[in-house]
Amino acid sequence: MAYDGTRYHGWQRQKNAMTLQEVMEDRIRVMTGASHTLIASGRTDAGVHALNQVCNFVTRSSIPPQSLQKGLNSLLPDDIFVKDAGWVPIDFHSRYSAKSKIYEYRILNSETPDIFQRNFIWHIRPPLNVEAMEVCLSHLRGSHDFSSFRSSGSSNTDPVRSVLTAELHGPLNGRLRIVVEADGFLRHMVRNIVGTVVEAGLGKMGPHRFKEIVSLKDRRAAGVKAPPQGLFLVDVRY
Amino acid sequence: MAYDGTRYHGWQRQKNAMTLQEVMEDRIRVMTGASHTLIASGRTDAGVHALNQVCNFVTRSSIPPQSLQKGLNSLLPDDIFVKDAGWVPIDFHSRYSAKSKIYEYRILNSETPDIFQRNFIWHIRPPLNVEAMEVCLSHLRGSHDFSSFRSSGSSNTDPVRSVLTAELHGPLNGRLRIVVEADGFLRHMVRNIVGTVVEAGLGKMGPHRFKEIVSLKDRRAAGVKAPPQGLFLVDVRY
Repeated sequence: MAYDGTRYHGWQRQKNAMTLQEVMEDRIRVMTGASHTLIASGRTDAGVHALNQVCNFVTRSSIPPQSLQKGLNSLLPDDIFVKDAGWVPIDFHSRYSAKSKIYEYRILNSETPDIFQRNFIWHIRPPLNVEAMEVCLSHLRGSHDFSSFRSSGSSNTDPVRSVLTAELHGPLNGRLRIVVEADGFLRHMVRNIVGTVVEAGLGKMGPHRFKEIVSLKDRRAAGVKAPPQGLFLVDVRY
Repeated sequence: MAYDGTRYHGWQRQKNAMTLQEVMEDRIRVMTGASHTLIASGRTDAGVHALNQVCNFVTRSSIPPQSLQKGLNSLLPDDIFVKDAGWVPIDFHSRYSAKSKIYEYRILNSETPDIFQRNFIWHIRPPLNVEAMEVCLSHLRGSHDFSSFRSSGSSNTDPVRSVLTAELHGPLNGRLRIVVEADGFLRHMVRNIVGTVVEAGLGKMGPHRFKEIVSLKDRRAAGVKAPPQGLFLVDVRY
């Protein structure tokens, strides 16, 4: 599924706040007549978007997947769209079965904002040093303890993750895209990485300092978290 | 100025509805300390956008235009942006001095919607016959009585307008843009034209019928009005 996360308090169901999980589970209940728990590949935060989120649920319903997809799309608000649906083996789990996930972070580096993209891009006025940012990203590749880029409040799971891709595309018309593929992500990991890479791009630190920050395994060493609206879950690989 | 018209009930000030004119005039009053009437090149409808709207007001304030621009941009909501500001001769009038205006209408012709563009494009599922649409547009060029494309409720001004450009760009990734430049536009003229051109694109009428509709000078002959969100005021020429 694809969704524009602007209006939602993230994926995960909460009391007193509209979430993607709640909206989806409500519509699935309408379609199947029963309550189901919908499992996503990852819980995107408030304001974060998805181009290709993957979800599954276990059901006794025999409704054909294509009918479910059509029905959901007619019931869902116009900022959520189910792109495909199908049966999967009973042991498939959107999160645990994922081999890797790809996130993209979009930056507009220009004097003037793009008001039509304001919910989908981080607008940064001062010119960014793209080469310095690329050097930073090169230090992310491979297996590392990413504690420096993990927000507090996350569970105490192993902080080691394998980054398969960390690259910068652009600038094209002032637009930059930072693409990160990893076997898993810690809480706010991409946004903490992007915020720190941007500090290097603004000349607030050298790329060698970025490498140091990775090795320090200390969240206080890294830069501020980038805002949510530039972040897209692009794909999940199984 | 550029604006995303999604949240506004059009340009023109109204009671009990938020309009672009009201929001702009409020901020100008904050900056200058006095009430001013802001004149735009044209009154865009609810949900219609502008890439380059031109406005002027007559003032005794000596605030430098660049300061006004910066101040307004800091006071305005993030769906409005003042791109430039300057002094003009006292007899300049954003509407009456305009030689021509350029509108663009954006269509997404694809099976699946683009949820991120939902406020900025008209999504049409069945395949459109682009050649037929281009033939229709060719019948618009030149001076004509455009009564067939004028919505009721408009004032009784002369319905003759000169269309300088009427062309279709694309399809590119399923996206079409219909660009119309004219010395002036009747009420809902572009949206009524686009709605009728799309009927030809869907095979509901032949392009020869479109030519007939123009010559009939009767609103009942033309097709339905295209929705507002695909329409952009692109430029004003003086």
